[in-house]
Amino acid sequence: MNRKNHANSLLSTITGPEDIKRLSIRELIALSGEIREFLINTVSNTGGHIAPNLGVVELTLALHRVYDTPRDKIIWDVGHQTYVHKILTGRKDRFHTLRQMDGLSGFPKTEESEYDAFNTGHSSTSISAALGMARARDLKGENYHVAAVIGDGALTGGMAFEALNDAGNARTNLLIVLNDNGMSIAPNVGGISRYLSRLRMRPFYYKTRESIQSLLDRKLPKSGKHVRRILHRIKSTMKSFLMPSMFFEDLGFRYFGPIDGHNIREMIRVLEHARTMKGPVLVHVCTVKGKGYRYAEEKPNVFHGIAPFEIETGELKNNGGESYSQVFGRKICELAKDDPDIVAITAAMPDGTGLNPFRESFSRRFYDVGIAEQHAVTFAAGLAKGGIKPVVAIYSTFLQRAYDQMLHDVALQNLHVVFAIDRAGVVGDDGETHQGIYDIAYIKTMPNFTLMAPASPRELEMMLAYAVSVHKGPIAIRYPRGTGSEIEALKQPITYGKGLVVREGKDVTLVAPGNFLRMALKTAALLEEEGISCEVINPRFIKPLDKQLLRTSIGKTGRVVVMEDGIVSGGFGSSVLEFLNGERIPARSLLMGFPDEPIPHGDRNLLYRKYGLDPQAMRDRIRDFLKASGKKEDGHAKGTP
Amino acid sequence: MNRKNHANSLLSTITGPEDIKRLSIRELIALSGEIREFLINTVSNTGGHIAPNLGVVELTLALHRVYDTPRDKIIWDVGHQTYVHKILTGRKDRFHTLRQMDGLSGFPKTEESEYDAFNTGHSSTSISAALGMARARDLKGENYHVAAVIGDGALTGGMAFEALNDAGNARTNLLIVLNDNGMSIAPNVGGISRYLSRLRMRPFYYKTRESIQSLLDRKLPKSGKHVRRILHRIKSTMKSFLMPSMFFEDLGFRYFGPIDGHNIREMIRVLEHARTMKGPVLVHVCTVKGKGYRYAEEKPNVFHGIAPFEIETGELKNNGGESYSQVFGRKICELAKDDPDIVAITAAMPDGTGLNPFRESFSRRFYDVGIAEQHAVTFAAGLAKGGIKPVVAIYSTFLQRAYDQMLHDVALQNLHVVFAIDRAGVVGDDGETHQGIYDIAYIKTMPNFTLMAPASPRELEMMLAYAVSVHKGPIAIRYPRGTGSEIEALKQPITYGKGLVVREGKDVTLVAPGNFLRMALKTAALLEEEGISCEVINPRFIKPLDKQLLRTSIGKTGRVVVMEDGIVSGGFGSSVLEFLNGERIPARSLLMGFPDEPIPHGDRNLLYRKYGLDPQAMRDRIRDFLKASGKKEDGHAKGTP
Repeated sequence: MNRKNHANSLLSTITGPEDIKRLSIRELIALSGEIREFLINTVSNTGGHIAPNLGVVELTLALHRVYDTPRDKIIWDVGHQTYVHKILTGRKDRFHTLRQMDGLSGFPKTEESEYDAFNTGHSSTSISAALGMARARDLKGENYHVAAVIGDGALTGGMAFEALNDAGNARTNLLIVLNDNGMSIAPNVGGISRYLSRLRMRPFYYKTRESIQSLLDRKLPKSGKHVRRILHRIKSTMKSFLMPSMFFEDLGFRYFGPIDGHNIREMIRVLEHARTMKGPVLVHVCTVKGKGYRYAEEKPNVFHGIAPFEIETGELKNNGGESYSQVFGRKICELAKDDPDIVAITAAMPDGTGLNPFRESFSRRFYDVGIAEQHAVTFAAGLAKGGIKPVVAIYSTFLQRAYDQMLHDVALQNLHVVFAIDRAGVVGDDGETHQGIYDIAYIKTMPNFTLMAPASPRELEMMLAYAVSVHKGPIAIRYPRGTGSEIEALKQPITYGKGLVVREGKDVTLVAPGNFLRMALKTAALLEEEGISCEVINPRFIKPLDKQLLRTSIGKTGRVVVMEDGIVSGGFGSSVLEFLNGERIPARSLLMGFPDEPIPHGDRNLLYRKYGLDPQAMRDRIRDFLKASGKKEDGHAKGTP
Repeated sequence: MNRKNHANSLLSTITGPEDIKRLSIRELIALSGEIREFLINTVSNTGGHIAPNLGVVELTLALHRVYDTPRDKIIWDVGHQTYVHKILTGRKDRFHTLRQMDGLSGFPKTEESEYDAFNTGHSSTSISAALGMARARDLKGENYHVAAVIGDGALTGGMAFEALNDAGNARTNLLIVLNDNGMSIAPNVGGISRYLSRLRMRPFYYKTRESIQSLLDRKLPKSGKHVRRILHRIKSTMKSFLMPSMFFEDLGFRYFGPIDGHNIREMIRVLEHARTMKGPVLVHVCTVKGKGYRYAEEKPNVFHGIAPFEIETGELKNNGGESYSQVFGRKICELAKDDPDIVAITAAMPDGTGLNPFRESFSRRFYDVGIAEQHAVTFAAGLAKGGIKPVVAIYSTFLQRAYDQMLHDVALQNLHVVFAIDRAGVVGDDGETHQGIYDIAYIKTMPNFTLMAPASPRELEMMLAYAVSVHKGPIAIRYPRGTGSEIEALKQPITYGKGLVVREGKDVTLVAPGNFLRMALKTAALLEEEGISCEVINPRFIKPLDKQLLRTSIGKTGRVVVMEDGIVSGGFGSSVLEFLNGERIPARSLLMGFPDEPIPHGDRNLLYRKYGLDPQAMRDRIRDFLKASGKKEDGHAKGTP
């Protein structure tokens, strides 16, 4: 304890950014160490994005040293690297509540602090937002600085490029800090990444050129003519090999860098200079992801976003079972063994999506396209058109980026692209910006699309095999974060558009896709105790509806309850209403899911409870619904829509 | 007539691309002229994208000369520049049916011809699709060429950059033809455009450098030492001023160009060379939009996509009234006069969206961000955060690109961004890829969003004033292509969430937002003749619903019909069903709109008829619905959902 208190002696004096301005460089370096220790101690308990934050300790200190927040605005791209920023802006004492219900968000939140200038979560938005704020400042005749901090990974996202294109041409003061660690969540890929690594070689180039030039400047003996020629040749060859073109300058930016992102003195010097410049400026900072914590430096992808872990060993505290992502990764390898046409595509998330084993076994058939969901989807459409079977694995929330490509390139052309939609439904800790609750609503409106949801790991395997090998046309499988367990009743093979009655009953039909099937079964058991008999349906297919099954079951019970891990408005339940209405089936309906409002962060089970979606709450709501709809004995004639 | 036949003597011999391979360069040049004449003659009657096609006559000929289609694949970005391609690939005789119902599409359609390798419509997809096809070819061990033809405008779209980033690093044979005409629909903007103009200066640079070098190589008199020094200085200064860095080469492409896109011989030479290269190649071709037709060269934006016009004068055949776009453009200027915080944003479409007058009057408050809908929306979010009132004007179909930004950056943060959604509903001639029928379905699922639809030009003005000056938070107004006319009953001021009863009745409630209100009134008049009394509601607000108004009217009639210019599934009608179900209101409902399938091109009124959405068809459907639901005398108790 003593050691810890001692170690935090500087950090404990920091109540806001103004305190940073008082420290010497030596103290700032000491403070960096204390912040790292504090970060590791806390996040090992809460879980969170530890590696990105360890990488930006010095950068965050330098920014708060040079800029005058909250007057000046710092916009953090993606935003999971704002822990240091939060600690320095008065939220240190609440930091242990990170990502917990009603606690600190893991992302910037303007609602949380005036120091958070703009909410982020998805990648590559910061330059657009910063340019907007900078131009707003100019229009209003105000006078503050605006900076965007964006990783080299986020730079592979197309909208960052759209924004660079606009900002480079804008005559407005704007700072972009390129935080270059060579990684997204996984190591970066593509031409821009190669370009940046060459940029990083610039200091080496300049140094070597200087040495050669100093040799050339000397008077060499006559016999040195030959040496001279060779030196000249080296000098010019070096240039074309090592000197990348100044793309950022071509776009209109003043470029500074690359500078060492762990050298506070150097960063303060460059940022102070940049602060005085007119027009758009880009400062290229090189950092090490996971800096200062051995395990995180060694495995920055594993420690990118991590559950609680043991500090001493770097091992997870609870290793859980096989996650849905892992089931997907295992099954897709199995299928690929027998079918050389299967390929897999990820948008910078081979770990999170479970595709690492596939990458290892089938490297020629694995494509990591960078944080580029739009390209990922249309690229898959091209592959499908060429006779290949692409499987695109993307989190539900990030797939929103490719809405238009799914609709315009895949759905309208009716191409056989398989979407493995991971983290569907509420994801919990990451909050508003990451909840995967919109996919049902938007995919169901796309023509030709089929959408499935497995209620167990084995069902995911069956659905994947079906989607890849049996089905033709656009097809998506949505499955939740975390693990699942088996349900005995789900062994029947997949048939197009067919669901299953998992439990028979007579009073009310519960329709619950995916992970909510288990919830429905629990609710049914609770209602059984009250003498209410539930028929429980696993629809398997969210689109198309199994109309026959619904007709039969609802015809019997006269009441239907739809439960879904997604928004109610325009969701699966709404499809059931449309069906009942279209077929003039007189049944009363209750739709359960998430309301039309941002769903905050917090433990998933707590969120279910908060929104009345845990079995106890569902039992109560269904009991009330049955009462209000006159239970069964009132007959169908009085059914409401 | 004679003259025309004579002029088409070469074109009449072209039945497919193989015929092009037989012609001499001289004949190809003559053929270019014939194609231009044919294009102008036809499109002046049908309307269509004349200027882009006039610009690519030689390029298309050269591509079909060098490549072996349909074995080799050419993917045309956006695809509205494929008229020449269509004429050369066996569709000349059907070309007069362009963009008409059951006629040729104005875009590539794999269903239409084996020469169309991939369907396009929205911008910036071609490199992704081409890379997919190239890699599919490699995986399948096949052997054909894949080329993407992309404009410099489409290159400002972020997904093109995502694809360049991936393709540049790919070890696969792939040709990208950059068709650089300095325009999107309007002149291009931003850093990349400036970069390309500097690239275009390369030949000038090389030539001047050569001249200077030849001077330097000469023996100059002693007194020439000074001249020599100056020449040296010019040479090196020129380089840093004129020589842009080779960004495409940095990304991994072999770059050729720029070459004159109207010089067939030169293009054939370069393409033949590129065809033999390994890996990704980019050929930079400079063309003139509208080439060869005076009016189109002078006003390439006006002649980008145009209605039927008089060849001799370049004037439109029917000049119509004031379009909704023009009403929007006029009103936003009026509002901006009194409020310096209002700014307008377009994604490369100042003409189409009606923003030209705004640009002229308020150039400092006007932002054209390029074909970059994603950036446009998050940029607007940044402006809103900075206290400005941004109005983003984008066509419904193109706004799909910014689904995630609307949800993630605007809706979740509850920012006051106004969306002027033009071309909402079916647009007709442009077909599948351009129908604006999804916006209701996806916007209604975004929290905090308000969505309105004006039923008349004046209502658009009122709604715009309301959205900009009264409302706080995300708000969108969707309005159709073309003109509208006034409806007497719509004079009441806008009140949040409040609709209007436009016609009173007792048998059935018709709810019809936007342009469908007129349709509903006509239908009501037809039903009146049959003794059926309709209450017609202009909801004004699609979200939120005017629950009180619906409750009252439906309570009276017991029957509700929703009519919308959008998809039924997840649409406005589906919101009405959710409302009725949630409130247990026993009413029968009929939802009318577009089905869950791609809606092809054709005249809008013909499309309405085809999908049972013209007043006659609606009358019949409502009559049947009332019959089936036991009209009114059966009472509410038997209401179905």
